Amino acid sequence: MASVTIPAAADFHVHLRDGKMMETVVPTVRQGGVSIAYVMPNLVPPITSVDMALAYHARLQALDPSVVFLMTLYLSPAITPEVIVAAAATGKIAGVKSYPQGVTTNSDAGVVDYESFYPVFAAMEEHDLVLNLHGESPSRPDNDITILNAEESFLPTLLDLHKRFPKLRIVLEHCTTAAAVEAVKKCGPNVAATITAHHLYLTVDQWAGQPHHFCKPVAKLPSDRQALLEAATSGNPKFFLGTDSAPHPRGAKEGSSCAAGVFTQPYAVQYVATAFDREGKLDKLRAFVCEFGRAFYKTVEKGWEKEENVRRDGIVLEKDPGVEVVREIGQGDLKIVPFKAGEKVWGLRWL
Amino acid sequence: MASVTIPAAADFHVHLRDGKMMETVVPTVRQGGVSIAYVMPNLVPPITSVDMALAYHARLQALDPSVVFLMTLYLSPAITPEVIVAAAATGKIAGVKSYPQGVTTNSDAGVVDYESFYPVFAAMEEHDLVLNLHGESPSRPDNDITILNAEESFLPTLLDLHKRFPKLRIVLEHCTTAAAVEAVKKCGPNVAATITAHHLYLTVDQWAGQPHHFCKPVAKLPSDRQALLEAATSGNPKFFLGTDSAPHPRGAKEGSSCAAGVFTQPYAVQYVATAFDREGKLDKLRAFVCEFGRAFYKTVEKGWEKEENVRRDGIVLEKDPGVEVVREIGQGDLKIVPFKAGEKVWGLRWL
Repeated sequence: MASVTIPAAADFHVHLRDGKMMETVVPTVRQGGVSIAYVMPNLVPPITSVDMALAYHARLQALDPSVVFLMTLYLSPAITPEVIVAAAATGKIAGVKSYPQGVTTNSDAGVVDYESFYPVFAAMEEHDLVLNLHGESPSRPDNDITILNAEESFLPTLLDLHKRFPKLRIVLEHCTTAAAVEAVKKCGPNVAATITAHHLYLTVDQWAGQPHHFCKPVAKLPSDRQALLEAATSGNPKFFLGTDSAPHPRGAKEGSSCAAGVFTQPYAVQYVATAFDREGKLDKLRAFVCEFGRAFYKTVEKGWEKEENVRRDGIVLEKDPGVEVVREIGQGDLKIVPFKAGEKVWGLRWL
Repeated sequence: MASVTIPAAADFHVHLRDGKMMETVVPTVRQGGVSIAYVMPNLVPPITSVDMALAYHARLQALDPSVVFLMTLYLSPAITPEVIVAAAATGKIAGVKSYPQGVTTNSDAGVVDYESFYPVFAAMEEHDLVLNLHGESPSRPDNDITILNAEESFLPTLLDLHKRFPKLRIVLEHCTTAAAVEAVKKCGPNVAATITAHHLYLTVDQWAGQPHHFCKPVAKLPSDRQALLEAATSGNPKFFLGTDSAPHPRGAKEGSSCAAGVFTQPYAVQYVATAFDREGKLDKLRAFVCEFGRAFYKTVEKGWEKEENVRRDGIVLEKDPGVEVVREIGQGDLKIVPFKAGEKVWGLRWL
C-alpha cells in the first residue's frame, strides 16, 4: 500500500503557544493533516479560567477557522467544581489537564496533591469532561525516581484515580513505556492514552546529545518503543494520536540548556504513516489518527464536528516520492526545527 | 576540616586534545591540582604507534614541563605484541586504551572483537602495561542495550578478560554504576576503576536537557551516584581519580547536536574535595586523588615520579571562601565551559 486515503486526522495533544509563536504554529496544524486539535493550556500564565480558555480559543480560531480547536483547562486551585460546570456549558472546553509540579515546560503551577481535587474530578465525572494526565512523578533522588521511571511510578496514581472515579474519562497523555501501555489496557474503557509521533521513533539513545529529540516524558528503551508501536497499531481504541508537538525557538533548544519538546505539527500524520508503514500496519492508520480519539472525546456526539464533514475533509498519504522535512519553519527569533529535519517521510495532500 | 593539605594529585584519565585546544587545556592540569596526568589517545587520527605517542608526549611536555604526562596507545589492529614491547621500553607509555567501536568521542577506530587482541593482552601482561577499558557495549536495540545499561552489559567482558589474563592490570575507566563498582570489587587486585569528578554529582536527570553535563558513559541513577561516592570515599585502593575531563568548544556542546564530555580539568581536585566534604569524608581525599592511582600504576617504582617530589609538590584545599568556577576558559572558537560554571567549589593553591 503506497498510498492511503483517510479522513482528516484528530490530534488530541498539541501545544500551539500564544503570540507570535502561535501565529507561526497554528498554520501547521492543517499542514500536518489534522482538522481537530486538542490544545494544551500551559501558557504563561496558564489557562486556569473559562474566560482565559475562551479568549485563547478565539485567538486560535481567528488564525485558522478551518480547524476545530478544543480546549482544556490547567488544573490548579483556581479550578473549582463551579468552574467545571461553567466550562462544560461553553461547548468549547473538553477537559482539564493535570501537570505534576515541575516535571515539564511551564508546569510550575502544577499539582502537588491530587486529593484536594477530588471534588473537581467528581464534577468532571458528572459533567463529562475529560481528565488529561501528564503521567510523571516528580524526581526524587532519595527514592531513585528519575525521568526514566517517572512515568512508571505515576501509574498507581492513574489506577487509583480510575478506581475512585470510574465514570471519569481519563487520558494518560503521551505514554512512553511498556508499563504504561499495560496499565491502560487493564483499566476500563474510560481510560485511554495518547501516543505521540516521535515516541514511535525515539529511544534514550536518540535524545542523549540530540537536543531536538529531547522531550518530557523522555523516550525510553527500545522495548518501550516497541510496546508503543504495538499499541498504536493494535486496533485497540484505548490508544490514539496526541502528538504533544511542542515548538520551541531554535535558541531554546540549542544552547547552554535545552527546553523539553519535539516539534511534529507540520508533519504529524506523515511521521505516523511512515512509522506504521515500517511496521506493515498501514491498515491501522485510520483508526489511530482519525477514529479512536474522536470516539473517546465524542467529537460528533457533542457537536464539535459533523461526521460528514470529517469524511469529506480527507487526506491522502503517499509513500512515493515522499517529502523531505524542512530544516526549520518560522522567522527571526522564532525559527523552529521540526522533528526529522532533512529526512524523508511520507507525503500528504488534502483531498 | 575546612582545609586539607595533600600531595599533588594524580589524574589517571585526561583528554588534552591537540593543537590549539591542547594549548588551552594543558595549562589547566596544574590549576586543577594535578602533577601527573594519564593522557587518552583518541586524537584524530588516534595514537596507534609508539612514535605518535612519543611525539604527542613531547608536544605536551613542551607546554608544561612541570607535569608528568603518561601515555596510552589506542587499541587497534596496528597495536601488535611487537608494539607492546617497544612501548614498554620507552618508559613513557604506561598502557593501552580500548574503546568499543562507536560508543564515544573519536571511537570510530575502536574494538569490535576482543579475541583478536589476546596476543596483545598477553604481551601487555608480560611487559607490565595497563589495559584501560572504556567499559561500554555498543547499543543494540534488538537486545534493549542502550547507553543506560551499556556499562553493565560490558561487565562480563571485563570479568572474562581478567580471568584470561589474571596478571594483566586492568582499569575499568570512568565507572558509573553500582554494578560496575561491585564487579571491580569482586576481581583480584589487578583490576581497578577510575571514577570521575562529575559522576560524583550527576544523575540522568542532570544531563537531560543540560548539554554541559552530557558525557559517555552517561550519568545513571541516584543509587549509582551513591555507589560511586561510597567507592571513592571507601579507602578501597581499587578506586581512584580519573577525571575523564573532556574539553569541547562551546559550539560543539551547544548546537543541533551535543558532543559527549564534561570539562573538569581546571578544578579537578576541587570538585572532588567539595563532594567528599558533603559526604563528611575529607579524610579519604588524599588516598583517592593522590595515592591509590599512583600505587596501581607504580609511578615511583617505574621512575616516572620521585616520591619526595610528589610530597614536596603539595596542594592546599580550602573550603572558605571557596571559589566560583569561571564561566568559560579559552579564546575565540575554543571557548570551553567548565563543569559547574558559576557555582562555588572549594579553593585550591599550590604549596
